[in-house]
Amino acid sequence: MAEIKATNITWHEGHVTREERAALLKQKGATLWFTGLSGSGKSTIAFTLEHALVQRGRLAYVLDGDNIRHGLNKNLGFSAADREENIRRIGEVAKLFADCGALTLTSFISPYRKDRDTVRALHDAAKLPFIEIHVSTPIETCEQRDPKGLYKKAREAVKAGKGMGFTGVDDPYEAPLKPELMIDATSTTPQQAAAVLIQYLEERGLLSA
Amino acid sequence: MAEIKATNITWHEGHVTREERAALLKQKGATLWFTGLSGSGKSTIAFTLEHALVQRGRLAYVLDGDNIRHGLNKNLGFSAADREENIRRIGEVAKLFADCGALTLTSFISPYRKDRDTVRALHDAAKLPFIEIHVSTPIETCEQRDPKGLYKKAREAVKAGKGMGFTGVDDPYEAPLKPELMIDATSTTPQQAAAVLIQYLEERGLLSA
Repeated sequence: MAEIKATNITWHEGHVTREERAALLKQKGATLWFTGLSGSGKSTIAFTLEHALVQRGRLAYVLDGDNIRHGLNKNLGFSAADREENIRRIGEVAKLFADCGALTLTSFISPYRKDRDTVRALHDAAKLPFIEIHVSTPIETCEQRDPKGLYKKAREAVKAGKGMGFTGVDDPYEAPLKPELMIDATSTTPQQAAAVLIQYLEERGLLSA
Repeated sequence: MAEIKATNITWHEGHVTREERAALLKQKGATLWFTGLSGSGKSTIAFTLEHALVQRGRLAYVLDGDNIRHGLNKNLGFSAADREENIRRIGEVAKLFADCGALTLTSFISPYRKDRDTVRALHDAAKLPFIEIHVSTPIETCEQRDPKGLYKKAREAVKAGKGMGFTGVDDPYEAPLKPELMIDATSTTPQQAAAVLIQYLEERGLLSA
Protein backbone atom coordinates (compact mmCIF):
# COMPACT_ATOMS: atom_id res chain seq x y z
CA MET A 1 0.00 0.00 0.00
CA ALA A 2 1.44 3.27 -1.20
CA GLU A 3 0.54 5.31 1.88
CA ILE A 4 2.56 3.00 4.08
CA LYS A 5 5.76 3.41 2.06
CA ALA A 6 5.20 7.15 1.98
CA THR A 7 4.94 7.59 5.76
CA ASN A 8 8.54 6.54 6.39
CA ILE A 9 7.71 5.57 9.93
CA THR A 10 9.09 2.84 12.12
CA TRP A 11 6.11 0.89 13.39
CA HIS A 12 5.82 -0.33 16.95
CA GLU A 13 3.14 -2.41 18.56
CA GLY A 14 4.20 -1.75 22.15
CA HIS A 15 2.95 1.00 24.41
CA VAL A 16 4.15 4.56 24.04
CA THR A 17 6.45 5.27 26.97
CA ARG A 18 6.00 8.06 29.45
CA GLU A 19 9.28 9.54 28.24
CA GLU A 20 7.98 9.70 24.66
CA ARG A 21 4.85 11.47 25.91
CA ALA A 22 6.95 13.93 27.93
CA ALA A 23 9.11 14.72 24.89
CA LEU A 24 6.00 15.29 22.78
CA LEU A 25 4.28 17.57 25.30
CA LYS A 26 7.35 19.24 26.84
CA GLN A 27 6.02 18.38 30.28
CA LYS A 28 5.49 15.48 32.63
CA GLY A 29 2.00 14.24 33.44
CA ALA A 30 0.82 14.94 36.99
CA THR A 31 -2.30 15.43 39.06
CA LEU A 32 -2.87 18.69 40.90
CA TRP A 33 -5.58 17.91 43.42
CA PHE A 34 -7.37 21.01 44.71
CA THR A 35 -9.27 20.42 47.94
CA GLY A 36 -11.16 22.90 50.07
CA LEU A 37 -14.57 24.14 51.16
CA SER A 38 -17.34 25.17 48.83
CA GLY A 39 -16.65 28.77 47.81
CA SER A 40 -12.96 28.58 48.75
CA GLY A 41 -11.87 29.42 45.21
CA LYS A 42 -10.68 25.98 43.99
CA SER A 43 -12.29 26.13 40.57
CA THR A 44 -11.36 29.74 39.89
CA ILE A 45 -7.73 28.97 40.66
CA ALA A 46 -7.81 25.73 38.66
CA PHE A 47 -9.24 27.39 35.55
CA THR A 48 -6.87 30.33 35.83
CA LEU A 49 -3.97 27.91 36.02
CA GLU A 50 -5.31 25.81 33.14
CA HIS A 51 -5.46 28.90 30.95
CA ALA A 52 -2.00 30.07 31.95
CA LEU A 53 -0.50 26.64 31.21
CA VAL A 54 -2.14 26.34 27.80
CA GLN A 55 -0.90 29.84 26.96
CA ARG A 56 2.58 28.59 27.78
CA GLY A 57 2.09 25.72 25.35
CA ARG A 58 1.38 23.14 28.01
CA LEU A 59 -1.55 20.70 28.09
CA ALA A 60 -3.72 21.12 31.16
CA TYR A 61 -7.24 19.90 31.82
CA VAL A 62 -9.66 20.54 34.67
CA LEU A 63 -11.87 17.81 36.05
CA ASP A 64 -14.65 19.38 38.10
CA GLY A 65 -18.27 18.99 39.06
CA ASP A 66 -19.44 20.25 35.69
CA ASN A 67 -17.80 17.58 33.57
CA ILE A 68 -17.85 14.73 36.12
CA ARG A 69 -21.09 14.91 38.09
CA HIS A 70 -23.23 15.17 34.94
CA GLY A 71 -21.25 12.50 33.14
CA LEU A 72 -19.12 9.72 34.58
CA ASN A 73 -20.60 10.07 38.06
CA LYS A 74 -24.17 10.93 37.22
CA ASN A 75 -25.31 7.63 38.73
CA LEU A 76 -23.89 8.56 42.16
CA GLY A 77 -25.75 10.32 44.94
CA PHE A 78 -24.53 11.81 48.20
CA SER A 79 -24.56 8.81 50.54
CA ALA A 80 -21.29 8.04 52.33
CA ALA A 81 -20.60 5.14 49.93
CA ASP A 82 -21.40 7.22 46.86
CA ARG A 83 -19.19 10.09 48.02
CA GLU A 84 -16.30 7.69 48.43
CA GLU A 85 -16.95 6.14 45.01
CA ASN A 86 -17.18 9.65 43.53
CA ILE A 87 -13.66 10.51 44.66
CA ARG A 88 -12.33 7.05 43.79
CA ARG A 89 -13.49 7.35 40.18
CA ILE A 90 -12.17 10.90 39.87
CA GLY A 91 -8.83 9.69 41.21
CA GLU A 92 -8.69 6.87 38.67
CA VAL A 93 -9.54 9.22 35.80
CA ALA A 94 -6.98 11.80 36.97
CA LYS A 95 -4.40 9.02 37.00
CA LEU A 96 -5.24 8.11 33.39
CA PHE A 97 -4.93 11.75 32.30
CA ALA A 98 -1.60 12.08 34.11
CA ASP A 99 -0.41 8.84 32.50
CA CYS A 100 -1.37 10.30 29.12
CA GLY A 101 0.94 13.22 29.90
CA ALA A 102 -1.55 15.93 30.87
CA LEU A 103 -1.28 18.30 33.80
CA THR A 104 -4.56 17.30 35.37
CA LEU A 105 -6.29 19.70 37.72
CA THR A 106 -9.11 18.35 39.86
CA SER A 107 -11.45 20.68 41.67
CA PHE A 108 -13.66 18.93 44.22
CA ILE A 109 -14.32 19.62 47.90
CA SER A 110 -13.06 16.06 48.61
CA PRO A 111 -13.50 16.56 52.38
CA TYR A 112 -12.28 13.19 53.65
CA ARG A 113 -8.60 12.57 54.24
CA LYS A 114 -8.91 8.84 53.68
CA ASP A 115 -10.33 9.26 50.18
CA ARG A 116 -7.64 11.75 49.17
CA ASP A 117 -4.95 9.51 50.59
CA THR A 118 -6.30 6.62 48.53
CA VAL A 119 -5.94 8.70 45.39
CA ARG A 120 -2.42 9.69 46.43
CA ALA A 121 -1.48 6.04 46.95
CA LEU A 122 -2.87 5.21 43.51
CA HIS A 123 -0.59 7.82 41.94
CA ASP A 124 2.40 6.77 44.02
CA ALA A 125 1.98 3.17 42.86
CA ALA A 126 1.91 4.36 39.24
CA LYS A 127 4.91 6.66 39.81
CA LEU A 128 2.88 9.71 38.85
CA PRO A 129 3.18 12.98 40.78
CA PHE A 130 0.24 13.79 43.05
CA ILE A 131 0.22 17.38 44.23
CA GLU A 132 -2.33 18.13 46.92
CA ILE A 133 -3.28 21.79 47.10
CA HIS A 134 -5.28 22.85 50.10
CA VAL A 135 -7.32 25.91 49.24
CA SER A 136 -7.59 26.91 52.85
CA THR A 137 -9.84 29.96 52.65
CA PRO A 138 -11.59 30.11 56.05
CA ILE A 139 -15.22 29.11 56.22
CA GLU A 140 -16.24 32.62 57.28
CA THR A 141 -14.97 33.99 53.96
CA CYS A 142 -16.46 31.12 51.97
CA GLU A 143 -19.80 31.64 53.64
CA GLN A 144 -19.76 35.39 53.07
CA ARG A 145 -19.11 34.81 49.36
CA ASP A 146 -21.55 31.89 49.04
CA PRO A 147 -21.71 32.29 45.24
CA LYS A 148 -24.32 29.57 44.78
CA GLY A 149 -26.29 30.27 47.98
CA LEU A 150 -25.41 26.80 49.26
CA TYR A 151 -24.35 27.78 52.79
CA LYS A 152 -27.58 29.72 53.27
CA LYS A 153 -29.55 26.68 52.15
CA ALA A 154 -27.54 24.36 54.39
CA ARG A 155 -27.95 26.61 57.47
CA GLU A 156 -31.70 26.79 56.87
CA ALA A 157 -31.89 23.01 56.45
CA VAL A 158 -30.06 22.50 59.75
CA LYS A 159 -32.36 25.00 61.49
CA ALA A 160 -35.36 23.12 60.13
CA GLY A 161 -33.89 19.91 61.50
CA LYS A 162 -33.17 18.52 58.02
CA GLY A 163 -29.43 18.24 57.73
CA MET A 164 -28.09 17.85 54.20
CA GLY A 165 -24.54 16.81 55.11
CA PHE A 166 -23.03 20.03 53.78
CA THR A 167 -19.27 20.25 54.27
CA GLY A 168 -18.36 22.80 56.95
CA VAL A 169 -21.95 23.11 58.17
CA ASP A 170 -23.14 19.65 59.18
CA ASP A 171 -20.41 17.48 57.71
CA PRO A 172 -16.70 17.72 58.52
CA TYR A 173 -13.90 19.00 56.32
CA GLU A 174 -10.73 17.12 57.13
CA ALA A 175 -7.86 19.41 56.17
CA PRO A 176 -4.79 17.78 54.59
CA LEU A 177 -2.01 17.12 57.10
CA LYS A 178 0.82 17.51 54.62
CA PRO A 179 -0.43 19.20 51.47
CA GLU A 180 2.20 20.10 48.89
CA LEU A 181 0.78 23.63 48.84
CA MET A 182 -1.67 25.77 50.82
CA ILE A 183 -3.44 28.74 49.28
CA ASP A 184 -5.74 31.06 51.22
CA ALA A 185 -7.82 32.85 48.63
CA THR A 186 -8.70 35.60 51.12
CA SER A 187 -5.31 37.13 50.60
CA THR A 188 -4.26 35.63 47.24
CA THR A 189 -5.82 36.39 43.87
CA PRO A 190 -6.38 33.51 41.43
CA GLN A 191 -3.62 35.03 39.27
CA GLN A 192 -1.18 35.05 42.18
CA ALA A 193 -2.13 31.49 43.05
CA ALA A 194 -1.61 30.36 39.45
CA ALA A 195 1.79 32.06 39.35
CA VAL A 196 2.85 30.30 42.55
CA LEU A 197 1.68 26.99 41.13
CA ILE A 198 3.52 27.48 37.83
CA GLN A 199 6.69 28.25 39.76
CA TYR A 200 6.16 25.10 41.81
CA LEU A 201 5.65 23.00 38.66
CA GLU A 202 8.78 24.48 37.14
CA GLU A 203 10.83 23.78 40.25
CA ARG A 204 9.66 20.17 40.27
CA GLY A 205 10.73 19.84 36.64
CA LEU A 206 7.22 19.10 35.46
CA LEU A 207 7.20 21.79 32.77
CA SER A 208 9.98 20.15 30.79
CA ALA A 209 10.39 16.71 29.23
CA MET B 1 4.93 39.28 43.59
CA ALA B 2 7.89 39.39 41.21
CA GLU B 3 7.12 36.17 39.41
CA ILE B 4 3.74 37.48 38.32
CA LYS B 5 5.16 40.60 36.71
CA ALA B 6 7.80 38.47 34.98
CA THR B 7 5.37 36.07 33.32
CA ASN B 8 3.86 38.70 31.02
CA ILE B 9 0.75 36.64 30.54
CA THR B 10 -2.84 37.67 30.06
CA TRP B 11 -4.82 35.88 32.72
CA HIS B 12 -8.18 34.31 32.11
CA GLU B 13 -10.52 32.59 34.48
CA GLY B 14 -12.78 31.05 31.85
CA HIS B 15 -12.44 27.62 30.28
CA VAL B 16 -9.85 26.92 27.63
CA THR B 17 -11.72 26.55 24.34
CA ARG B 18 -11.57 23.54 22.08
CA GLU B 19 -9.98 25.73 19.41
CA GLU B 20 -7.16 26.70 21.78
CA ARG B 21 -6.55 23.02 22.55
CA ALA B 22 -6.54 22.16 18.84
CA ALA B 23 -4.00 24.91 18.12
CA LEU B 24 -1.79 23.67 20.95
CA LEU B 25 -1.89 20.02 19.90
CA LYS B 26 -2.16 20.47 16.12
CA GLN B 27 -5.10 18.09 16.09
CA LYS B 28 -8.75 17.83 17.06
CA GLY B 29 -9.84 15.62 19.93
CA ALA B 30 -11.82 12.54 18.90
CA THR B 31 -12.69 9.04 20.04
CA LEU B 32 -11.73 6.05 17.89
CA TRP B 33 -13.84 3.21 19.23
CA PHE B 34 -12.50 -0.22 18.28
CA THR B 35 -15.05 -3.00 18.63
CA GLY B 36 -14.72 -6.68 17.75
CA LEU B 37 -14.33 -10.18 19.09
CA SER B 38 -11.68 -11.29 21.52
CA GLY B 39 -8.54 -12.01 19.49
CA SER B 40 -9.70 -9.93 16.53
CA GLY B 41 -6.66 -7.65 16.77
CA LYS B 42 -8.25 -4.51 18.27
CA SER B 43 -5.52 -3.80 20.80
CA THR B 44 -2.63 -4.52 18.46
CA ILE B 45 -4.06 -2.11 15.91
CA ALA B 46 -4.84 0.50 18.58
CA PHE B 47 -1.32 0.43 20.03
CA THR B 48 0.28 0.46 16.58
CA LEU B 49 -1.80 3.51 15.71
CA GLU B 50 -1.02 5.18 19.04
CA HIS B 51 2.69 4.79 18.39
CA ALA B 52 2.43 6.05 14.82
CA LEU B 53 0.48 9.12 15.91
CA VAL B 54 2.91 10.01 18.70
CA GLN B 55 5.78 9.63 16.24
CA ARG B 56 4.02 12.16 14.05
CA GLY B 57 3.85 14.54 16.99
CA ARG B 58 0.22 13.84 17.81
CA LEU B 59 -1.22 13.00 21.22
CA ALA B 60 -2.95 9.62 21.27
CA TYR B 61 -3.93 7.46 24.21
CA VAL B 62 -5.32 3.94 24.42
CA LEU B 63 -7.98 3.00 26.94
CA ASP B 64 -8.13 -0.79 27.22
CA GLY B 65 -8.76 -3.59 29.66
CA ASP B 66 -5.34 -3.16 31.24
CA ASN B 67 -5.79 0.41 32.39
CA ILE B 68 -9.57 0.36 32.93
CA ARG B 69 -10.58 -3.01 34.33
CA HIS B 70 -7.92 -2.89 37.06
CA GLY B 71 -8.61 0.76 37.85
CA LEU B 72 -11.77 2.76 37.22
CA ASN B 73 -13.91 -0.32 36.63
CA LYS B 74 -12.38 -2.72 39.12
CA ASN B 75 -15.64 -2.71 41.09
CA LEU B 76 -17.60 -4.08 38.13
CA GLY B 77 -18.23 -7.72 37.33
CA PHE B 78 -19.70 -9.38 34.26
CA SER B 79 -23.44 -9.21 34.94
CA ALA B 80 -25.55 -7.57 32.24
CA ALA B 81 -25.87 -4.40 34.33
CA ASP B 82 -22.14 -4.28 35.06
CA ARG B 83 -21.23 -4.81 31.40
CA GLU B 84 -23.45 -1.90 30.46
CA GLU B 85 -21.97 0.29 33.21
CA ASN B 86 -18.48 -0.75 32.08
CA ILE B 87 -19.04 0.61 28.58
CA ARG B 88 -20.90 3.67 29.88
CA ARG B 89 -17.96 4.70 32.08
CA ILE B 90 -15.44 4.06 29.31
CA GLY B 91 -17.56 6.18 26.99
CA GLU B 92 -17.66 9.03 29.51
CA VAL B 93 -13.89 8.88 30.05
CA ALA B 94 -13.22 8.74 26.30
CA LYS B 95 -15.39 11.83 25.93
CA LEU B 96 -13.31 13.67 28.56
CA PHE B 97 -10.06 12.72 26.80
CA ALA B 98 -11.46 13.84 23.44
CA ASP B 99 -12.63 17.11 25.03
CA CYS B 100 -9.09 17.58 26.36
CA GLY B 101 -7.86 17.32 22.75
CA ALA B 102 -6.49 13.78 22.67
CA LEU B 103 -7.01 11.21 19.95
CA THR B 104 -8.54 8.62 22.21
CA LEU B 105 -8.44 4.97 21.15
CA THR B 106 -10.63 2.53 23.03
CA SER B 107 -10.12 -1.20 22.71
CA PHE B 108 -12.96 -3.24 24.19
CA ILE B 109 -15.09 -6.02 22.73
CA SER B 110 -18.17 -3.85 23.47
CA PRO B 111 -20.49 -6.43 21.94
CA TYR B 112 -23.84 -4.66 22.34
CA ARG B 113 -25.03 -2.19 19.75
CA LYS B 114 -27.15 -0.27 22.25
CA ASP B 115 -24.18 0.45 24.52
CA ARG B 116 -22.01 1.64 21.65
CA ASP B 117 -24.83 3.80 20.30
CA THR B 118 -25.20 5.39 23.73
CA VAL B 119 -21.53 6.35 23.66
CA ARG B 120 -21.92 7.71 20.14
CA ALA B 121 -24.90 9.83 21.23
CA LEU B 122 -22.84 11.17 24.14
CA HIS B 123 -20.13 12.32 21.73
CA ASP B 124 -22.65 13.73 19.25
CA ALA B 125 -24.22 15.82 22.02
CA ALA B 126 -20.78 17.17 22.95
CA LYS B 127 -19.89 17.80 19.28
CA LEU B 128 -16.93 15.46 19.49
CA PRO B 129 -16.12 13.01 16.67
CA PHE B 130 -16.93 9.38 17.41
CA ILE B 131 -15.34 6.97 14.96
CA GLU B 132 -16.53 3.40 15.28
CA ILE B 133 -14.06 0.89 13.90
CA HIS B 134 -15.33 -2.64 13.50
CA VAL B 135 -12.40 -5.04 13.68
CA SER B 136 -14.31 -7.69 11.79
CA THR B 137 -11.86 -10.59 11.87
CA PRO B 138 -14.05 -13.74 11.61
CA ILE B 139 -14.52 -15.80 14.75
CA GLU B 140 -12.77 -18.79 13.13
CA THR B 141 -9.57 -16.76 12.84
CA CYS B 142 -9.95 -15.27 16.35
CA GLU B 143 -10.49 -18.73 17.79
CA GLN B 144 -7.51 -20.21 15.95
CA ARG B 145 -5.30 -17.47 17.34
CA ASP B 146 -6.83 -17.50 20.84
CA PRO B 147 -3.79 -15.73 22.35
CA LYS B 148 -5.10 -15.94 25.92
CA GLY B 149 -6.74 -19.37 25.63
CA LEU B 150 -10.12 -17.79 26.33
CA TYR B 151 -12.09 -19.48 23.55
CA LYS B 152 -10.81 -22.89 24.65
CA LYS B 153 -11.91 -22.13 28.20
CA ALA B 154 -15.30 -20.86 27.06
CA ARG B 155 -15.94 -23.93 24.86
CA GLU B 156 -15.04 -26.22 27.74
CA ALA B 157 -17.30 -24.28 30.10
CA VAL B 158 -20.21 -24.60 27.67
CA LYS B 159 -19.53 -28.35 27.25
CA ALA B 160 -19.57 -28.70 31.02
CA GLY B 161 -22.91 -26.90 31.13
CA LYS B 162 -21.41 -23.85 32.81
CA GLY B 163 -21.74 -21.00 30.34
CA MET B 164 -19.58 -17.98 31.06
CA GLY B 165 -21.27 -15.58 28.66
CA PHE B 166 -18.26 -15.37 26.38
CA THR B 167 -18.82 -13.20 23.31
CA GLY B 168 -19.09 -15.27 20.14
CA VAL B 169 -19.41 -18.54 22.08
CA ASP B 170 -22.39 -18.21 24.41
CA ASP B 171 -23.08 -14.50 24.21
CA PRO B 172 -23.86 -12.55 21.04
CA TYR B 173 -21.66 -10.06 19.24
CA GLU B 174 -23.81 -7.41 17.62
CA ALA B 175 -21.82 -6.05 14.68
CA PRO B 176 -22.08 -2.31 14.02
CA LEU B 177 -24.60 -1.48 11.30
CA LYS B 178 -22.81 1.65 10.07
CA PRO B 179 -19.26 1.68 11.40
CA GLU B 180 -17.03 4.46 10.09
CA LEU B 181 -14.44 1.79 9.20
CA MET B 182 -14.18 -1.99 8.99
CA ILE B 183 -10.88 -3.80 9.30
CA ASP B 184 -10.46 -7.55 8.88
CA ALA B 185 -7.16 -8.43 10.53
CA THR B 186 -7.00 -11.72 8.63
CA SER B 187 -5.89 -9.87 5.53
CA THR B 188 -4.60 -6.59 7.00
CA THR B 189 -1.49 -6.15 9.13
CA PRO B 190 -1.64 -3.80 12.13
CA GLN B 191 0.69 -1.48 10.22
CA GLN B 192 -1.61 -1.40 7.21
CA ALA B 193 -4.60 -0.82 9.47
CA ALA B 194 -2.82 2.07 11.23
CA ALA B 195 -1.90 3.60 7.88
CA VAL B 196 -5.51 3.43 6.73
CA LEU B 197 -6.65 5.01 9.99
CA ILE B 198 -4.11 7.84 9.77
CA GLN B 199 -5.26 8.57 6.25
CA TYR B 200 -8.85 8.60 7.47
CA LEU B 201 -7.99 11.01 10.32
CA GLU B 202 -6.15 13.28 7.88
CA GLU B 203 -9.07 13.32 5.47
CA ARG B 204 -11.45 14.24 8.27
CA GLY B 205 -9.14 17.11 9.20
CA LEU B 206 -8.47 15.73 12.67
CA LEU B 207 -4.68 15.89 12.33
CA SER B 208 -4.63 19.65 12.05
CA ALA B 209 -5.89 22.46 14.29
